[in-house]
Amino acid sequence: MHQFVDGEWLSGEEVTATNEEGEFERQPTTFRDRVEDDPDAEFPVEAGRYHLYVSYACPWAHRTLVTRALKGLEDAVSVDVVDPYRDEDGWQFTPGKAGCTPDTVNGFDYLREAYVAADPNYTGRVTVPVLWDKREGTIVNNESREIMRMLDTAFDDLATRDVDLYPEGYRDDVDRIIDEIYEPINNGVYRAGFADTQEAYERSVGALFDALDRWEGVLGAQRYLAGDRLTEADVAMFTTLIRFDDVYHTHFKCNRRKVSEYPNLWNYLRELYQLPGVARTVNMDHIREHYYTTHPDVNPKRIVAVGPDHDFAAPHDRDRLPGGPPEAFAGASADD
Amino acid sequence: MHQFVDGEWLSGEEVTATNEEGEFERQPTTFRDRVEDDPDAEFPVEAGRYHLYVSYACPWAHRTLVTRALKGLEDAVSVDVVDPYRDEDGWQFTPGKAGCTPDTVNGFDYLREAYVAADPNYTGRVTVPVLWDKREGTIVNNESREIMRMLDTAFDDLATRDVDLYPEGYRDDVDRIIDEIYEPINNGVYRAGFADTQEAYERSVGALFDALDRWEGVLGAQRYLAGDRLTEADVAMFTTLIRFDDVYHTHFKCNRRKVSEYPNLWNYLRELYQLPGVARTVNMDHIREHYYTTHPDVNPKRIVAVGPDHDFAAPHDRDRLPGGPPEAFAGASADD
Repeated sequence: MHQFVDGEWLSGEEVTATNEEGEFERQPTTFRDRVEDDPDAEFPVEAGRYHLYVSYACPWAHRTLVTRALKGLEDAVSVDVVDPYRDEDGWQFTPGKAGCTPDTVNGFDYLREAYVAADPNYTGRVTVPVLWDKREGTIVNNESREIMRMLDTAFDDLATRDVDLYPEGYRDDVDRIIDEIYEPINNGVYRAGFADTQEAYERSVGALFDALDRWEGVLGAQRYLAGDRLTEADVAMFTTLIRFDDVYHTHFKCNRRKVSEYPNLWNYLRELYQLPGVARTVNMDHIREHYYTTHPDVNPKRIVAVGPDHDFAAPHDRDRLPGGPPEAFAGASADD
Repeated sequence: MHQFVDGEWLSGEEVTATNEEGEFERQPTTFRDRVEDDPDAEFPVEAGRYHLYVSYACPWAHRTLVTRALKGLEDAVSVDVVDPYRDEDGWQFTPGKAGCTPDTVNGFDYLREAYVAADPNYTGRVTVPVLWDKREGTIVNNESREIMRMLDTAFDDLATRDVDLYPEGYRDDVDRIIDEIYEPINNGVYRAGFADTQEAYERSVGALFDALDRWEGVLGAQRYLAGDRLTEADVAMFTTLIRFDDVYHTHFKCNRRKVSEYPNLWNYLRELYQLPGVARTVNMDHIREHYYTTHPDVNPKRIVAVGPDHDFAAPHDRDRLPGGPPEAFAGASADD
């Protein structure tokens, strides 16, 4: 079985298809409803009602896991984790494999069953994350940026920590920065890795390192991407940076430098990793298995590279800069 | 046209063939005669008589170029350079392409013509380096270690520098170290990159980094591999280290660390690069093009990775250790 894209069943290779210039083009997500902090809304906030389908491997899904962890929404929003190995049947559940879960909500074997349950005529890609409504038995949203925003701004009554990642006075900057880092960095690593021509690759990898160089400079003078406060923009940057040296550097040929060779980005990455609950959202085995085994047009022998064996829990130097993490984290450890 | 191996014409992929355990096995070289400093020898030393066919891409061929440069044998032994792109027709001459030469001796289009000229029944692999005898019109030797030794020990009368890379009192160590680094390091990067199974890859990459870790320790206490004197063992190590971060780290998944992350190996590498004549033997464009475009079973899209853009000419710290390069280098610059 292949993935059903624009009315056609596509193989895994076609899902990484490139345009006439050899450039990878990501298809848009399609479920765009919202959970709201309003009892009269179509999808009102409610403890235990909403569920996330994620892959630990996927940086987009990872945004929702990090936001859920920082806010302390683990009890309010449940999670199931798919198998990091994605073959032509798409994301699937492999209970018993380390780090994976069954589908505890619907008992599906394949994530595409959730898409078809939500829309019998569904013709888009089957992607993670999925925000599922257990009451209505449907998908609320499958766009990582929007799910992150909902978890951050609509679920405060259920959160165990008073953490606001979209604070007043910073909102324009947060939205601008999430936009700004998307193309060159978050999606840029994919554009580099899936490029079919040397020119498309060099354009993407050039823009990627130009952007990393620029943020390295910014983070030498301020603690977080939007200034002195932790925001959603940092969550969006984190999930790309944490995968960079292990996967993107080698598998996607983003090998001008490692993140660990950028002093500010590297210390910044370690600070984020050490925030409460975040380390538990990082499953490097799933990350490495997924990328190296799922793209045979890039890595036909499916050998999983050993990687640099980084210690993300080592001390960082970010306390030298003004600002700091939310007060709600006071007294919490990285393992909380 | 394919390469003729063990009585069969093999495609490029078969030349990287692995055994039942998924391990790459390099085929032996076959021309093993010697140039000697003896007028009665079958192949006596003689100015202008011998010729090297090399690829700038190949670490084995590179050993002979570095030895020739250190000794100052550029006028005594001529060189032709093949195209770094090797397709199923094997190494070929592409006059006009940057860094490449025609075959100035025989006017061949393909290197295999030299092998067949030397032995009409030749059934081995067509490899570089080749030491060619212009007078007899035949191949003297195609084993890099033996050609390096001949250039080092038999051509002193023609050398413009009094440099001995196989000095009395060090010879046992030099031979032992060349043996010792071959399997885990020089050939180990290939065994990692061509492995067909995760187990074979992990065995090779583990042995590789164990060996690099060990030499990193040794080079913290002594200047060269065999002690305080530059020897052939350093030439053999150099041609692997210079390719490591640009090619082996990414293309062959040797990505536990970069050489530039080993302080002693990195400074040692830069000292060797800066010895007279050596920098001119390093053509990183040929190195990168060759590996990334010649192994479609490893890199099917043939995208050439950008690499780290190292400055091998930056200052090194090796003068802190006892010993140093040959006195004959006094006053010579890296560009000589």
